[in-house]
Amino acid sequence: MTTSRYDVLGIGNAIVDVIAKAGDDFLVAQGMHKGTMALIDEARAQAIYDAMGPATESSGGSAANTIVGVASFGARAAFVGKVRSDELGGAFAHDIRAANVAFDTKPAQEGPSTARCYIIVTPDGERTMNTYLGAAQDLQPGDIDENAIASAADVYLEGYLWDPPHAKQAFVKAARIAHGAGRRVALTLSDAFCVGRYRAEFLDLIRNGTVDILFANEGELLSLYETADFDAAVKTLRSDATLAVVTRSEKGCVVVTPDKAEAVPAAKIERVVDVTGAGDLFAAGFLVGHSRGRDNATAARLGALAAAEVIQHVGARPLVSLKTLAEQQRLLT
Amino acid sequence: MTTSRYDVLGIGNAIVDVIAKAGDDFLVAQGMHKGTMALIDEARAQAIYDAMGPATESSGGSAANTIVGVASFGARAAFVGKVRSDELGGAFAHDIRAANVAFDTKPAQEGPSTARCYIIVTPDGERTMNTYLGAAQDLQPGDIDENAIASAADVYLEGYLWDPPHAKQAFVKAARIAHGAGRRVALTLSDAFCVGRYRAEFLDLIRNGTVDILFANEGELLSLYETADFDAAVKTLRSDATLAVVTRSEKGCVVVTPDKAEAVPAAKIERVVDVTGAGDLFAAGFLVGHSRGRDNATAARLGALAAAEVIQHVGARPLVSLKTLAEQQRLLT
Repeated sequence: MTTSRYDVLGIGNAIVDVIAKAGDDFLVAQGMHKGTMALIDEARAQAIYDAMGPATESSGGSAANTIVGVASFGARAAFVGKVRSDELGGAFAHDIRAANVAFDTKPAQEGPSTARCYIIVTPDGERTMNTYLGAAQDLQPGDIDENAIASAADVYLEGYLWDPPHAKQAFVKAARIAHGAGRRVALTLSDAFCVGRYRAEFLDLIRNGTVDILFANEGELLSLYETADFDAAVKTLRSDATLAVVTRSEKGCVVVTPDKAEAVPAAKIERVVDVTGAGDLFAAGFLVGHSRGRDNATAARLGALAAAEVIQHVGARPLVSLKTLAEQQRLLT
Repeated sequence: MTTSRYDVLGIGNAIVDVIAKAGDDFLVAQGMHKGTMALIDEARAQAIYDAMGPATESSGGSAANTIVGVASFGARAAFVGKVRSDELGGAFAHDIRAANVAFDTKPAQEGPSTARCYIIVTPDGERTMNTYLGAAQDLQPGDIDENAIASAADVYLEGYLWDPPHAKQAFVKAARIAHGAGRRVALTLSDAFCVGRYRAEFLDLIRNGTVDILFANEGELLSLYETADFDAAVKTLRSDATLAVVTRSEKGCVVVTPDKAEAVPAAKIERVVDVTGAGDLFAAGFLVGHSRGRDNATAARLGALAAAEVIQHVGARPLVSLKTLAEQQRLLT
């Protein structure tokens, strides 16, 4: 195994977030399920945008947010995802590169526009997402650069990649290359409804050893095992996964291995403004800690630190250096 | 004089803000003058964007921000400004309409892209702006709808309109229509460097009665009269203007009439996050108070309230209802 060029390389849907505030009545009127992500077509995207209040645009995408978080910790990071060569695609590429992430996926020159996620933030800080995949649907196995994958210590993949038609093949190709090069593969289950769409395939990936590190929140885990019993789900997870981290919002997280299930508390915060990116940034902190050889509890505390930063402001990416925050708390030295 | 359809109609450059944080060293390296607005061409826009950190995009434009503020107070508002029919132009139109502002200016179908303002926010909350005017340069007298202008109680114009080649003619046309219909014309001097570019013309507009209400900050006033003596400048202003409001950041403002110069304090705030939009929102509050027949001091307090809201978060438009804030403070009932 050669020296790694990247600490973490992420593959995911390249998405620009379009964020607006609204009351719960907006979700009801639009038939949206609070706290979840729905896939929408272009016509529905237009209808939602027309109904939304004034919005701000900022780069997003689950795995992309994670990778920006990894870079903010000072680690070497790369991202693979598909935009179109339009204004929002240019903004996505600018923002991720300006965050010190290597991003070399060729933009689509034609076809659907860059993916957008219409995010409604309710007064409780919860976010409800509607994603128009657009150009992200065109991610192909050909976009996976074998050398880049093989030179990343950890390859991080989002469950959302199961939605676009060919991205799943890109996912499988990347996982095979990574393991062939002696690297680790991490997966986030992304969303409870996403788990509902691809439950059998995700379980297969976990059980057949494709996934070395699994990230899930409580809702996703319960959806995975089709149960309402958290403890029972964790018990099953211990026999299925090598290493899994289940996040539980303000209750912290549980690090699950075949040997034990270890609870780690959430970081204290003053006020939740917008939970968008919480899970993504948790994964960033955990992956950085893990790649630096920290124990699982310390890695989870780095995850909690990053999640706490991002939920205290609007937007899914950190506004301050996570490296500095981690050093202040003596979690990375 | 017929009943008014709008309380305030604003005319200005239609601009999307691209906002990023940076240290003072970035301003030095880029040769930027802190706290001011510089006009840039497309090549320089690209160079600045390439050098900037991760950014968020949100609708801006000085007069447009003011008009959104007017609407947030619950007043009837309209805006005239030119975008292109591109992604950012669509976002500008969506955002201003979603804020309950009438916006009917036809977008340009070809030519330069929608205007962008690259805003660098330094740790002290000060903002430094670089504007690529793009499609805003195409605002023409033909875009001025005589009926709309004549049906607005106040017409609000930004000094920045002197920059695009034909917008000045649109400005003059609008002022003539407004006065012909017995309406009031308000002007903001926009920026000290802008005043430097058009000093003689601005003085002429003030002295010949084209302007009924003048807005300026301290730097713009000093630039207008080419002096460092604030009191002397105010004294000259009293003989030149019918009604002027000079804002002085945390020192509050001075309402200047031929009879007197009345100081009104700024609103108390916890922390300045981003001063972008402070002057724009001050003008919104003052215009709303003035149009409702409040005395000048109360109108200035409404201005201070709106400015205080906008400087406590990133972005140039209010995040909460200014009507609600004003009612809570019993300034509008």
